[in-house]
Amino acid sequence: MLKVAIVMGSDSDLPVVRPAAETLKKLGIPFEVRVISAHRTPEIAAEFAKSARADGFGVIVAAAGKAAHLAGAMAANTTLPVVGIPVKSSTLDGLDALLSTVQMPSGMPVATVAIDGAQNAALLCAQIFSLGDARLAEELARMREEMKQKIAEKDRAVRAQFE
Amino acid sequence: MLKVAIVMGSDSDLPVVRPAAETLKKLGIPFEVRVISAHRTPEIAAEFAKSARADGFGVIVAAAGKAAHLAGAMAANTTLPVVGIPVKSSTLDGLDALLSTVQMPSGMPVATVAIDGAQNAALLCAQIFSLGDARLAEELARMREEMKQKIAEKDRAVRAQFE
Amino acid sequence: MLKVAIVMGSDSDLPVVRPAAETLKKLGIPFEVRVISAHRTPEIAAEFAKSARADGFGVIVAAAGKAAHLAGAMAANTTLPVVGIPVKSSTLDGLDALLSTVQMPSGMPVATVAIDGAQNAALLCAQIFSLGDARLAEELARMREEMKQKIAEKDRAVRAQFE
Amino acid sequence: MLKVAIVMGSDSDLPVVRPAAETLKKLGIPFEVRVISAHRTPEIAAEFAKSARADGFGVIVAAAGKAAHLAGAMAANTTLPVVGIPVKSSTLDGLDALLSTVQMPSGMPVATVAIDGAQNAALLCAQIFSLGDARLAEELARMREEMKQKIAEKDRAVRAQFE
Amino acid sequence: MLKVAIVMGSDSDLPVVRPAAETLKKLGIPFEVRVISAHRTPEIAAEFAKSARADGFGVIVAAAGKAAHLAGAMAANTTLPVVGIPVKSSTLDGLDALLSTVQMPSGMPVATVAIDGAQNAALLCAQIFSLGDARLAEELARMREEMKQKIAEKDRAVRAQFE
Amino acid sequence: MLKVAIVMGSDSDLPVVRPAAETLKKLGIPFEVRVISAHRTPEIAAEFAKSARADGFGVIVAAAGKAAHLAGAMAANTTLPVVGIPVKSSTLDGLDALLSTVQMPSGMPVATVAIDGAQNAALLCAQIFSLGDARLAEELARMREEMKQKIAEKDRAVRAQFE
Amino acid sequence: MLKVAIVMGSDSDLPVVRPAAETLKKLGIPFEVRVISAHRTPEIAAEFAKSARADGFGVIVAAAGKAAHLAGAMAANTTLPVVGIPVKSSTLDGLDALLSTVQMPSGMPVATVAIDGAQNAALLCAQIFSLGDARLAEELARMREEMKQKIAEKDRAVRAQFE
Amino acid sequence: MLKVAIVMGSDSDLPVVRPAAETLKKLGIPFEVRVISAHRTPEIAAEFAKSARADGFGVIVAAAGKAAHLAGAMAANTTLPVVGIPVKSSTLDGLDALLSTVQMPSGMPVATVAIDGAQNAALLCAQIFSLGDARLAEELARMREEMKQKIAEKDRAVRAQFE
Repeated sequence: MLKVAIVMGSDSDLPVVRPAAETLKKLGIPFEVRVISAHRTPEIAAEFAKSARADGFGVIVAAAGKAAHLAGAMAANTTLPVVGIPVKSSTLDGLDALLSTVQMPSGMPVATVAIDGAQNAALLCAQIFSLGDARLAEELARMREEMKQKIAEKDRAVRAQFE
Repeated sequence: MLKVAIVMGSDSDLPVVRPAAETLKKLGIPFEVRVISAHRTPEIAAEFAKSARADGFGVIVAAAGKAAHLAGAMAANTTLPVVGIPVKSSTLDGLDALLSTVQMPSGMPVATVAIDGAQNAALLCAQIFSLGDARLAEELARMREEMKQKIAEKDRAVRAQFE
Repeated sequence: MLKVAIVMGSDSDLPVVRPAAETLKKLGIPFEVRVISAHRTPEIAAEFAKSARADGFGVIVAAAGKAAHLAGAMAANTTLPVVGIPVKSSTLDGLDALLSTVQMPSGMPVATVAIDGAQNAALLCAQIFSLGDARLAEELARMREEMKQKIAEKDRAVRAQFE
Repeated sequence: MLKVAIVMGSDSDLPVVRPAAETLKKLGIPFEVRVISAHRTPEIAAEFAKSARADGFGVIVAAAGKAAHLAGAMAANTTLPVVGIPVKSSTLDGLDALLSTVQMPSGMPVATVAIDGAQNAALLCAQIFSLGDARLAEELARMREEMKQKIAEKDRAVRAQFE
Repeated sequence: MLKVAIVMGSDSDLPVVRPAAETLKKLGIPFEVRVISAHRTPEIAAEFAKSARADGFGVIVAAAGKAAHLAGAMAANTTLPVVGIPVKSSTLDGLDALLSTVQMPSGMPVATVAIDGAQNAALLCAQIFSLGDARLAEELARMREEMKQKIAEKDRAVRAQFE
Repeated sequence: MLKVAIVMGSDSDLPVVRPAAETLKKLGIPFEVRVISAHRTPEIAAEFAKSARADGFGVIVAAAGKAAHLAGAMAANTTLPVVGIPVKSSTLDGLDALLSTVQMPSGMPVATVAIDGAQNAALLCAQIFSLGDARLAEELARMREEMKQKIAEKDRAVRAQFE
Repeated sequence: MLKVAIVMGSDSDLPVVRPAAETLKKLGIPFEVRVISAHRTPEIAAEFAKSARADGFGVIVAAAGKAAHLAGAMAANTTLPVVGIPVKSSTLDGLDALLSTVQMPSGMPVATVAIDGAQNAALLCAQIFSLGDARLAEELARMREEMKQKIAEKDRAVRAQFE
Repeated sequence: MLKVAIVMGSDSDLPVVRPAAETLKKLGIPFEVRVISAHRTPEIAAEFAKSARADGFGVIVAAAGKAAHLAGAMAANTTLPVVGIPVKSSTLDGLDALLSTVQMPSGMPVATVAIDGAQNAALLCAQIFSLGDARLAEELARMREEMKQKIAEKDRAVRAQFE
């Protein structure tokens, strides 16, 4: 089964990224978590991305803040789908990371999710894998159903408060 | 073979979206192009997304401007990967469409590309399909190679100008 | 008498939304509070909006954060006036929700109030209902008078401090 | 029948505002169009708003650019619903008018539509009036149906292009 | 001697505005502090501004947050110079108040200072009054000198730390 | 009679600045127009500002684009009131010049008008001078009256179009 | 003598970049112009930067638009000073390129100049080289003098217009 | 050996600036730290910059917040390279300081680093000095190597957590 690579530019991004790992675990999707920096360890970044397909990865999830180049650096070195998580840092409220991740030039897509949107990054991986994995497709459908139940419960609770 | 759905909120988005269709064609990926509005034809939008997997689609690409809800409306009704193209309109330079597309809540990912980034949306589809399609993986690798050649040629041309 | 529907995308929006409920209560306008998500429970959202007029609602107030599609999803499924409250979340200071709520395409208005502006959403409902309800028109006029008195008192208190 | 007032801060806003007038006309809603400036003719603005309800108006639509105070000035002097149209001017792409119109303080709602969103302002008036006017409610429903047909036609045309 | 009017839209703005009052006091400029709202007490606002020149005021300083119309409402009703202080509130980091205050249409200037820049508003009043008041001009020059001394002292202290 | 200095950072700003000169001329206020750059001719800028009061100036109007330091550089070298006109340039739609002009630190006010708001800069000068010049006060009042007449005429013209 | 490398991400950036080349030429600083893409030719980018010091370069100037990673990719592979020119593209008015270029993480500086600020990039190179090159230091001083003369001439011309 | 000048506009900027001093110390680069304000002590600012080259400085690092003119004021008075650190203050999240620092007009470069990016400012100085100082070039290379080791360690630690 294809694996997901979760790559972050700094270990300080781990709290933001952790929900991605937890969601993949829950979905039974194998994954590895790495600290690789587009700027501080560029060779490792390039090599990792270049061999990712051969190493059994199906998607690379890259999380970075500020001038967030990590997802782009991955995309430049692989033809696997790359999912970018812009990480909010101490200034500009995440706008810098969002624009640095999503505004990629023609030829080099990065599938960008919301600022700090790690859980959605994992779900996107699952959706991608679900194209070739009926069990995962069913699991995703089941999760959606569960989500609906939860909203319905909360709906009942809130309605009750105001009746 | 899985198809791509290219959905746009208004036929006025067609010039922006067209490169997605052309890129898919070049890559030999079957696709359909639709005008479906999250706001004006919400039932069609919901039904289209709900039956998309059963109808043989593998990815839904959704392009919309302003308060761009189309990609999100697709995502809400399918567990297929949804790719969002924010479209620049007459005010705010595309920022409204970008934020409306990318800032999705937990549980509902939209794989967002750059504002007006239709070609990258198509390439992302190809990358996703390449996980189960060795020919496509090779084709993407070949296109990268071609891109490198082109840059190299332009590099020579520009260098020559300044020598 | 027509009712107001207060709909929020997540029960975590309740603290922001509560002033809308309190204001309606004070004004004697009947209302219901619901948790309905444009993305997680899209069918419920569509059905709720579709039957809202027949169910005795006169206005739908919709509060949501981030890529806030809830008000738009309501508007797409009813011809009742829809009031949108953009909710500030952890990134981008509410700008994402504001643009996602207000920048609606032609044909689908959402009457947007300020970020986190729940009290004004309720007052807007009262203003709308006041067109056919003389008591409410008087009550709104009385509240304005009260507001003026309060400002006048505060004015006296502040002036006194600096004399 | 209640009338709509369409007020603009400068006659240079007329091209932006005209679709509001045309839409009201099409819907058979009586309206008046006025040039009144919150800053240049503040007494007229205040008087107009103060007597608007007694003068048979049901909604005031106010369009202004830059530090757009017109809708707020109307709202301060009436308890009728006020609809604000932020108008894009030569700098800042409409953001100044949007924030000046929508970010109203508690107690003074302005129902804000999209930047340059005049047609939606008119539709919002119709939705408001439809609460007490069954014909208008039907007419709005019919317009929605028409809109759906148009999208469906465009959908067919675009699909045909790519088959 | 001409007085300064310090007007704020809400008494919650007092902490931001207080440095203006303190600076005027220190400079020996008479002033009054008022809570007057452009939206909640529009008649008082208009009357205050209209009679301000006759009442012995030379400048009106107006502080307000969000869709900050107070300075503009003052400007619309007087030909005295009006100084606007945009006040930061809970969303958008003061940008809404800044644009609502500074982007005034032709014919109605508001002399805008920095977000929460109350001290500078007071100094601007003093600069304006200094044109006809030699003592004040000298006092301002003296304050500048004092400021220079303070920076020089801090410079020495910081240099010492790093030697 | 006190003069106004209109200073611009580059002669390319002249089209934006010209309305300031024309308005002052119309009001009978003496003025000089200068090209002085905070960055390219810093000594001249400093000297000009330092001697401005002694040279018979009452206000310095400074217009500049991009990282617009000119108004600040004037303010740093005089205790005269300084009016800043942020000038829109080829990128960022004037936001850079606005923030560089208005966000001055404590102690150094710049009275900022709208982006490209040259006419208002001139009117602000007139308002300031009117404190000691009854004729100017009357003239400003008269201009206001004229403005009202113009709006009233336009109001009549527009109303007529829609009757 | 050390050379400057002018690297751009796409040959479409050449019109923006050209003033950098012209300025270096005028200053007698040897330079090479290259088209190298951080995303399309990442190995060439990395190799170029890695060998730049040994190849006789003293500064790398990198120009790119959108999610502008080129300067960062250079910086990651050299300890030479890297100057970044953010290039304005068709959306977002250059803000994306600015933030992607300037918001670099700790350890990896990029000396960023204004959006489309190619001439300043060249001057910055000259300033850097001037530390070890007295002729260049003199030349820069001479250019400043020239600039002052030009401003003075324009000042005279503009003053004359208004006398 | 050439020195670095670290200049800040206010001693309140010291916590942000300190990492620059510490990094220079670690690298063995002589430096001085000064509090000089472009607005409050403009003569000192101008004199400091004018004599900086003769006084043995090689680079001036200038840190300031809000309408951050300090770096520009330095640049206007020297042909040494000037590095600008935009400092985040209580409003607008640093965007004002960034634009005021980086958007310099042609002829006057400021080498801008990230908001609050003091460490990178110091490294940029070292990179500049390394052109004429082989020891420093080696030291920078060594630091890069160290950085890589640290990332590699963190990578191992994080990988271990998820195995």
